[in-house]
Amino acid sequence: MARGRFIALEGGEGVGKSTQVRALAAALRGRGHDVIETREPGGSEGAEAIRRLLLEGSADRWTPGAEALLFAAARADHVAKTIRPALEAGRWVVTDRFLDSSLAYQGGTGGISIGQLRQLHQVGSDGLLPDRTLLLTLPAEEAARRAEARDRGASDRIGGRDAGYHAKVAEGFASLAAGEPERFRLVDALGDAATVTGRLLAALEDL
Amino acid sequence: MARGRFIALEGGEGVGKSTQVRALAAALRGRGHDVIETREPGGSEGAEAIRRLLLEGSADRWTPGAEALLFAAARADHVAKTIRPALEAGRWVVTDRFLDSSLAYQGGTGGISIGQLRQLHQVGSDGLLPDRTLLLTLPAEEAARRAEARDRGASDRIGGRDAGYHAKVAEGFASLAAGEPERFRLVDALGDAATVTGRLLAALEDL
Repeated sequence: MARGRFIALEGGEGVGKSTQVRALAAALRGRGHDVIETREPGGSEGAEAIRRLLLEGSADRWTPGAEALLFAAARADHVAKTIRPALEAGRWVVTDRFLDSSLAYQGGTGGISIGQLRQLHQVGSDGLLPDRTLLLTLPAEEAARRAEARDRGASDRIGGRDAGYHAKVAEGFASLAAGEPERFRLVDALGDAATVTGRLLAALEDL
Repeated sequence: MARGRFIALEGGEGVGKSTQVRALAAALRGRGHDVIETREPGGSEGAEAIRRLLLEGSADRWTPGAEALLFAAARADHVAKTIRPALEAGRWVVTDRFLDSSLAYQGGTGGISIGQLRQLHQVGSDGLLPDRTLLLTLPAEEAARRAEARDRGASDRIGGRDAGYHAKVAEGFASLAAGEPERFRLVDALGDAATVTGRLLAALEDL
Protein backbone atom coordinates (compact mmCIF):
# COMPACT_ATOMS: atom_id res chain seq x y z
CA MET A 1 0.00 0.00 0.00
CA ALA A 2 1.29 3.50 -0.83
CA ARG A 3 2.25 5.61 2.16
CA GLY A 4 -0.21 8.47 2.83
CA ARG A 5 0.70 12.15 2.69
CA PHE A 6 1.47 14.25 5.73
CA ILE A 7 0.20 17.87 5.59
CA ALA A 8 0.72 20.48 8.32
CA LEU A 9 -1.09 23.82 8.61
CA GLU A 10 0.96 26.44 10.38
CA GLY A 11 0.68 30.10 11.31
CA GLY A 12 0.17 32.37 14.32
CA GLU A 13 -2.96 32.82 16.45
CA GLY A 14 -6.09 33.82 14.53
CA VAL A 15 -5.10 32.88 10.97
CA GLY A 16 -7.86 30.25 10.76
CA LYS A 17 -5.88 27.02 11.02
CA SER A 18 -8.47 24.92 12.83
CA THR A 19 -11.29 25.94 10.44
CA GLN A 20 -9.07 25.23 7.45
CA VAL A 21 -7.90 21.84 8.77
CA ARG A 22 -11.53 20.71 8.80
CA ALA A 23 -12.28 22.22 5.39
CA LEU A 24 -9.12 20.89 3.77
CA ALA A 25 -9.67 17.39 5.16
CA ALA A 26 -13.24 17.43 3.81
CA ALA A 27 -12.06 18.60 0.37
CA LEU A 28 -9.38 15.87 0.24
CA ARG A 29 -11.97 13.25 1.21
CA GLY A 30 -14.09 14.58 -1.67
CA ARG A 31 -11.18 13.67 -3.94
CA GLY A 32 -11.20 10.10 -2.66
CA HIS A 33 -8.48 10.20 -0.01
CA ASP A 34 -8.77 8.60 3.41
CA VAL A 35 -7.93 11.53 5.74
CA ILE A 36 -7.46 12.01 9.47
CA GLU A 37 -7.50 15.44 11.14
CA THR A 38 -5.32 16.04 14.15
CA ARG A 39 -3.67 18.86 16.10
CA GLU A 40 -0.74 19.81 18.32
CA PRO A 41 0.00 19.82 21.11
CA GLY A 42 -2.14 16.70 21.40
CA GLY A 43 -3.47 14.28 18.83
CA SER A 44 -2.92 11.10 20.87
CA GLU A 45 -3.87 10.08 24.40
CA GLY A 46 -0.44 10.71 25.92
CA ALA A 47 0.08 13.94 24.00
CA GLU A 48 -3.29 15.29 25.16
CA ALA A 49 -2.23 14.62 28.77
CA ILE A 50 0.97 16.59 28.13
CA ARG A 51 -1.08 19.32 26.39
CA ARG A 52 -2.99 19.89 29.62
CA LEU A 53 0.30 20.40 31.47
CA LEU A 54 1.45 22.86 28.79
CA LEU A 55 -1.65 25.03 28.43
CA GLU A 56 -2.89 25.21 32.03
CA GLY A 57 -1.38 27.21 34.87
CA SER A 58 0.43 30.51 35.06
CA ALA A 59 2.51 32.00 32.23
CA ASP A 60 5.75 31.19 34.07
CA ARG A 61 4.74 27.68 35.12
CA TRP A 62 7.49 26.13 32.95
CA THR A 63 10.95 27.35 32.07
CA PRO A 64 11.63 27.67 28.32
CA GLY A 65 13.72 24.50 28.44
CA ALA A 66 11.04 22.45 30.20
CA GLU A 67 8.41 23.77 27.80
CA ALA A 68 10.51 22.80 24.75
CA LEU A 69 11.01 19.29 26.15
CA LEU A 70 7.30 18.86 26.89
CA PHE A 71 6.29 19.97 23.39
CA ALA A 72 8.82 17.53 21.91
CA ALA A 73 7.53 14.72 24.15
CA ALA A 74 3.94 15.39 23.11
CA ARG A 75 4.99 15.43 19.46
CA ALA A 76 6.88 12.14 19.88
CA ASP A 77 3.74 10.48 21.20
CA HIS A 78 1.58 12.06 18.49
CA VAL A 79 3.93 10.80 15.78
CA ALA A 80 4.27 7.29 17.23
CA LYS A 81 0.63 6.67 18.10
CA THR A 82 -1.31 8.66 15.49
CA ILE A 83 0.68 10.03 12.54
CA ARG A 84 3.04 7.18 11.55
CA PRO A 85 0.40 4.44 11.86
CA ALA A 86 -2.01 6.45 9.67
CA LEU A 87 0.61 7.19 7.01
CA GLU A 88 1.70 3.55 6.95
CA ALA A 89 -1.95 2.53 6.44
CA GLY A 90 -2.10 4.79 3.37
CA ARG A 91 -4.13 7.53 5.02
CA TRP A 92 -3.49 11.26 4.63
CA VAL A 93 -2.84 13.21 7.83
CA VAL A 94 -3.79 16.89 8.15
CA THR A 95 -2.49 18.44 11.37
CA ASP A 96 -3.17 21.80 13.00
CA ARG A 97 0.49 22.71 13.90
CA PHE A 98 3.62 20.56 13.98
CA LEU A 99 7.38 21.05 14.54
CA ASP A 100 7.53 24.48 12.90
CA SER A 101 5.25 25.90 15.60
CA SER A 102 7.85 24.93 18.22
CA LEU A 103 10.61 26.45 16.08
CA ALA A 104 8.69 29.70 15.47
CA TYR A 105 7.33 30.13 19.01
CA GLN A 106 10.37 29.00 20.97
CA GLY A 107 13.46 29.17 18.75
CA GLY A 108 15.84 31.88 19.90
CA THR A 109 13.81 32.65 23.04
CA GLY A 110 14.80 31.81 26.60
CA GLY A 111 18.22 30.59 25.52
CA ILE A 112 16.82 27.77 23.34
CA SER A 113 18.10 27.68 19.76
CA ILE A 114 16.36 26.33 16.68
CA GLY A 115 19.19 23.81 16.38
CA GLN A 116 18.47 22.48 19.87
CA LEU A 117 14.74 22.21 19.08
CA ARG A 118 15.59 20.18 15.98
CA GLN A 119 17.75 17.89 18.18
CA LEU A 120 14.75 17.29 20.45
CA HIS A 121 12.64 16.41 17.41
CA GLN A 122 15.32 13.97 16.27
CA VAL A 123 15.33 12.23 19.66
CA GLY A 124 11.56 12.10 19.99
CA SER A 125 10.28 11.65 16.44
CA ASP A 126 13.30 10.56 14.41
CA GLY A 127 13.12 13.95 12.66
CA LEU A 128 9.84 13.27 10.80
CA LEU A 129 8.79 16.26 8.65
CA PRO A 130 5.53 16.91 6.76
CA ASP A 131 5.45 16.30 3.02
CA ARG A 132 3.97 19.78 2.76
CA THR A 133 3.69 22.59 5.30
CA LEU A 134 1.04 25.19 4.46
CA LEU A 135 1.79 28.51 6.18
CA LEU A 136 -1.33 30.66 6.51
CA THR A 137 -0.38 34.34 6.47
CA LEU A 138 -2.30 37.46 7.49
CA PRO A 139 -1.36 41.10 8.13
CA ALA A 140 -0.53 41.37 11.85
CA GLU A 141 -3.47 43.69 12.69
CA GLU A 142 -5.98 41.33 11.08
CA ALA A 143 -4.56 38.30 12.92
CA ALA A 144 -4.76 40.14 16.25
CA ARG A 145 -8.36 41.20 15.56
CA ARG A 146 -9.42 37.62 14.76
CA ALA A 147 -7.65 36.09 17.78
CA GLU A 148 -9.24 38.65 20.08
CA ALA A 149 -12.72 38.02 18.65
CA ARG A 150 -12.29 34.27 19.07
CA ASP A 151 -10.85 34.20 22.57
CA ARG A 152 -12.74 37.14 24.14
CA GLY A 153 -10.01 37.47 26.73
CA ALA A 154 -9.99 33.74 27.58
CA SER A 155 -6.77 32.85 25.79
CA ASP A 156 -4.45 30.16 27.18
CA ARG A 157 -0.88 30.38 28.54
CA ILE A 158 0.65 30.95 25.08
CA GLY A 159 -2.10 32.69 23.09
CA GLY A 160 -2.26 35.31 25.85
CA ARG A 161 1.28 36.62 25.29
CA ASP A 162 1.75 40.18 23.98
CA ALA A 163 1.64 41.55 20.43
CA GLY A 164 5.44 41.86 20.16
CA TYR A 165 5.72 38.16 20.88
CA HIS A 166 3.20 37.29 18.15
CA ALA A 167 4.96 39.55 15.61
CA LYS A 168 8.22 37.73 16.39
CA VAL A 169 6.45 34.38 15.84
CA ALA A 170 5.21 35.54 12.41
CA GLU A 171 8.77 36.52 11.45
CA GLY A 172 9.98 33.15 12.68
CA PHE A 173 7.52 31.29 10.44
CA ALA A 174 8.48 33.44 7.42
CA SER A 175 12.15 32.68 7.99
CA LEU A 176 11.53 28.92 8.29
CA ALA A 177 9.49 28.95 5.08
CA ALA A 178 12.23 30.80 3.22
CA GLY A 179 14.74 28.19 4.36
CA GLU A 180 12.75 25.20 3.01
CA PRO A 181 10.92 26.34 -0.13
CA GLU A 182 10.27 22.78 -1.29
CA ARG A 183 8.34 21.80 1.83
CA PHE A 184 6.62 25.13 2.59
CA ARG A 185 3.93 27.01 0.70
CA LEU A 186 2.74 30.44 1.87
CA VAL A 187 -1.04 30.75 1.60
CA ASP A 188 -2.90 34.07 1.93
CA ALA A 189 -5.52 33.67 4.67
CA LEU A 190 -7.51 36.81 3.77
CA GLY A 191 -10.91 36.24 2.16
CA ASP A 192 -13.79 33.87 2.82
CA ALA A 193 -13.09 30.37 4.11
CA ALA A 194 -13.93 28.56 0.84
CA THR A 195 -11.52 30.80 -1.10
CA VAL A 196 -8.73 30.04 1.38
CA THR A 197 -9.47 26.29 1.19
CA GLY A 198 -9.17 26.52 -2.60
CA ARG A 199 -5.74 28.11 -2.21
CA LEU A 200 -4.65 25.33 0.15
CA LEU A 201 -5.77 22.63 -2.29
CA ALA A 202 -3.90 24.38 -5.10
CA ALA A 203 -0.76 24.30 -2.96
CA LEU A 204 -1.04 20.49 -2.75
CA GLU A 205 -1.51 19.79 -6.47
CA ASP A 206 2.00 18.39 -6.92
CA LEU A 207 1.40 15.81 -4.18
CA MET B 1 26.68 33.57 50.77
CA ALA B 2 28.55 30.43 49.69
CA ARG B 3 26.73 28.21 47.23
CA GLY B 4 25.48 24.96 48.77
CA ARG B 5 26.60 21.49 47.69
CA PHE B 6 24.65 19.25 45.36
CA ILE B 7 24.78 15.53 46.19
CA ALA B 8 23.05 12.77 44.17
CA LEU B 9 22.52 9.18 45.29
CA GLU B 10 22.35 6.77 42.39
CA GLY B 11 21.99 3.03 41.82
CA GLY B 12 19.51 0.44 40.62
CA GLU B 13 16.30 -0.71 42.31
CA GLY B 14 16.69 -2.03 45.85
CA VAL B 15 20.12 -0.59 46.77
CA GLY B 16 18.61 1.55 49.54
CA LYS B 17 18.76 5.03 48.01
CA SER B 18 15.64 6.51 49.62
CA THR B 19 16.59 5.26 53.11
CA GLN B 20 20.09 6.61 52.68
CA VAL B 21 18.94 10.00 51.35
CA ARG B 22 17.07 10.52 54.64
CA ALA B 23 19.96 9.24 56.75
CA LEU B 24 22.61 11.22 54.90
CA ALA B 25 20.57 14.44 55.06
CA ALA B 26 20.12 13.94 58.83
CA ALA B 27 23.84 13.31 59.29
CA LEU B 28 24.74 16.45 57.31
CA ARG B 29 22.29 18.49 59.38
CA GLY B 30 24.04 17.13 62.46
CA ARG B 31 27.22 18.71 61.09
CA GLY B 32 25.52 22.10 60.84
CA HIS B 33 24.46 22.19 57.19
CA ASP B 34 21.06 23.36 55.97
CA VAL B 35 19.90 20.39 53.83
CA ILE B 36 16.93 19.63 51.60
CA GLU B 37 16.01 16.10 50.51
CA THR B 38 14.48 15.56 47.10
CA ARG B 39 14.00 12.88 44.45
CA GLU B 40 13.56 12.22 40.74
CA PRO B 41 11.47 12.04 38.76
CA GLY B 42 9.72 14.74 40.78
CA GLY B 43 10.96 17.15 43.44
CA SER B 44 8.89 20.15 42.28
CA GLU B 45 5.20 20.66 41.54
CA GLY B 46 5.57 20.46 37.74
CA ALA B 47 8.00 17.56 37.90
CA GLU B 48 5.67 15.58 40.16
CA ALA B 49 2.89 16.03 37.57
CA ILE B 50 5.24 14.70 34.89
CA ARG B 51 6.28 11.85 37.24
CA ARG B 52 2.68 10.66 37.33
CA LEU B 53 2.63 10.51 33.52
CA LEU B 54 5.90 8.54 33.54
CA LEU B 55 5.16 5.95 36.22
CA GLU B 56 1.49 5.22 35.57
CA GLY B 57 0.02 3.23 32.69
CA SER B 58 1.23 0.24 30.72
CA ALA B 59 4.90 -0.59 30.08
CA ASP B 60 4.63 0.54 26.45
CA ARG B 61 2.68 3.74 27.19
CA TRP B 62 5.59 5.92 25.97
CA THR B 63 8.14 5.37 23.24
CA PRO B 64 11.78 5.54 24.40
CA GLY B 65 12.09 9.00 22.82
CA ALA B 66 9.00 10.40 24.53
CA GLU B 67 10.11 8.90 27.83
CA ALA B 68 13.56 10.49 27.55
CA LEU B 69 12.00 13.90 26.80
CA LEU B 70 9.58 13.62 29.73
CA PHE B 71 12.37 12.71 32.17
CA ALA B 72 14.41 15.67 30.90
CA ALA B 73 11.40 18.00 31.23
CA ALA B 74 10.77 16.84 34.80
CA ARG B 75 14.46 17.34 35.61
CA ALA B 76 14.42 20.85 34.08
CA ASP B 77 11.55 21.83 36.38
CA HIS B 78 13.19 20.18 39.40
CA VAL B 79 16.44 22.06 38.75
CA ALA B 80 14.75 25.43 38.12
CA LYS B 81 12.22 25.36 40.94
CA THR B 82 13.95 23.33 43.67
CA ILE B 83 17.64 22.60 43.21
CA ARG B 84 19.13 25.87 41.91
CA PRO B 85 17.21 28.12 44.33
CA ALA B 86 18.34 25.95 47.27
CA LEU B 87 21.99 25.93 46.18
CA GLU B 88 21.94 29.69 45.64
CA ALA B 89 20.55 30.12 49.16
CA GLY B 90 23.54 28.21 50.53
CA ARG B 91 21.61 25.01 51.24
CA TRP B 92 22.85 21.50 50.52
CA VAL B 93 20.69 19.37 48.23
CA VAL B 94 20.57 15.57 48.54
CA THR B 95 18.61 13.94 45.71
CA ASP B 96 17.42 10.38 45.20
CA ARG B 97 18.44 10.02 41.50
CA PHE B 98 19.47 12.62 38.93
CA LEU B 99 20.78 12.70 35.34
CA ASP B 100 22.84 9.52 35.65
CA SER B 101 19.68 7.48 36.20
CA SER B 102 18.43 8.61 32.78
CA LEU B 103 21.80 7.77 31.24
CA ALA B 104 21.99 4.33 32.89
CA TYR B 105 18.34 3.34 32.36
CA GLN B 106 17.84 4.76 28.87
CA GLY B 107 21.23 5.32 27.23
CA GLY B 108 21.76 2.92 24.34
CA THR B 109 18.20 1.53 24.54
CA GLY B 110 15.40 2.19 22.06
CA GLY B 111 17.71 4.03 19.69
CA ILE B 112 18.51 6.79 22.24
CA SER B 113 22.21 7.42 22.83
CA ILE B 114 23.89 8.77 25.96
CA GLY B 115 25.03 11.74 23.87
CA GLN B 116 21.43 12.58 22.96
CA LEU B 117 20.37 12.32 26.61
CA ARG B 118 23.14 14.76 27.56
CA GLN B 119 21.82 17.14 24.84
CA LEU B 120 18.36 17.02 26.44
CA HIS B 121 19.93 17.83 29.82
CA GLN B 122 21.75 20.77 28.26
CA VAL B 123 18.50 22.15 26.80
CA GLY B 124 16.45 21.64 29.96
CA SER B 125 18.89 22.20 32.80
CA ASP B 126 21.87 23.95 31.25
CA GLY B 127 23.87 20.79 31.92
CA LEU B 128 23.90 21.11 35.72
CA LEU B 129 25.79 18.21 37.37
CA PRO B 130 26.05 17.22 41.04
CA ASP B 131 29.18 18.17 42.97
CA ARG B 132 29.29 14.53 44.03
CA THR B 133 27.39 11.49 42.81
CA LEU B 134 27.36 8.58 45.27
CA LEU B 135 26.73 5.29 43.47
CA LEU B 136 25.37 2.62 45.84
CA THR B 137 26.43 -0.82 44.67
CA LEU B 138 25.17 -4.31 45.56
CA PRO B 139 25.64 -7.78 44.09
CA ALA B 140 22.78 -8.26 41.57
CA GLU B 141 21.09 -11.11 43.51
CA GLU B 142 20.98 -9.04 46.70
CA ALA B 143 19.51 -6.01 44.86
CA ALA B 144 16.80 -8.17 43.28
CA ARG B 145 15.94 -9.73 46.66
CA ARG B 146 15.57 -6.30 48.30
CA ALA B 147 13.50 -4.81 45.47
CA GLU B 148 11.17 -7.82 45.54
CA ALA B 149 10.72 -7.60 49.32
CA ARG B 150 9.96 -3.89 49.09
CA ASP B 151 7.53 -3.93 46.16
CA ARG B 152 5.76 -7.27 46.82
CA GLY B 153 4.81 -7.40 43.17
CA ALA B 154 3.48 -3.82 43.10
CA SER B 155 6.38 -2.26 41.22
CA ASP B 156 5.82 0.62 38.77
CA ARG B 157 6.32 0.83 34.97
CA ILE B 158 10.11 0.86 35.24
CA GLY B 159 10.87 -1.08 38.43
CA GLY B 160 8.83 -3.96 37.01
CA ARG B 161 11.12 -4.62 34.03
CA ASP B 162 13.06 -7.88 33.91
CA ALA B 163 16.34 -8.92 35.56
CA GLY B 164 18.35 -8.59 32.34
CA TYR B 165 17.27 -4.96 32.10
CA HIS B 166 18.35 -4.27 35.68
CA ALA B 167 21.74 -5.95 35.14
CA LYS B 168 22.27 -3.71 32.10
CA VAL B 169 21.39 -0.66 34.22
CA ALA B 170 24.00 -1.66 36.82
CA GLU B 171 26.63 -1.97 34.08
CA GLY B 172 25.57 1.44 32.77
CA PHE B 173 26.10 3.07 36.16
CA ALA B 174 29.51 1.41 36.56
CA SER B 175 30.58 2.70 33.16
CA LEU B 176 29.42 6.25 33.91
CA ALA B 177 31.30 6.21 37.23
CA ALA B 178 34.47 5.01 35.53
CA GLY B 179 34.20 7.89 33.05
CA GLU B 180 33.98 10.62 35.71
CA PRO B 181 36.07 9.49 38.70
CA GLU B 182 36.21 13.00 40.18
CA ARG B 183 32.44 13.37 40.47
CA PHE B 184 31.52 9.75 41.30
CA ARG B 185 32.24 7.64 44.36
CA LEU B 186 31.24 3.97 44.50
CA VAL B 187 29.80 3.07 47.91
CA ASP B 188 29.21 -0.52 49.05
CA ALA B 189 25.53 -0.81 50.07
CA LEU B 190 25.93 -4.14 51.94
CA GLY B 191 25.67 -3.97 55.74
CA ASP B 192 23.38 -2.18 58.18
CA ALA B 193 22.00 1.24 57.28
CA ALA B 194 24.18 3.19 59.75
CA THR B 195 27.33 1.58 58.36
CA VAL B 196 26.34 2.54 54.81
CA THR B 197 25.56 6.12 55.90
CA GLY B 198 29.04 6.31 57.43
CA ARG B 199 30.55 5.25 54.10
CA LEU B 200 28.53 7.93 52.28
CA LEU B 201 29.71 10.63 54.69
CA ALA B 202 33.30 9.50 54.22
CA ALA B 203 32.86 9.88 50.47
CA LEU B 204 31.94 13.55 50.99
CA GLU B 205 34.85 14.50 53.25
CA ASP B 206 36.63 16.51 50.53
CA LEU B 207 33.52 18.69 50.02
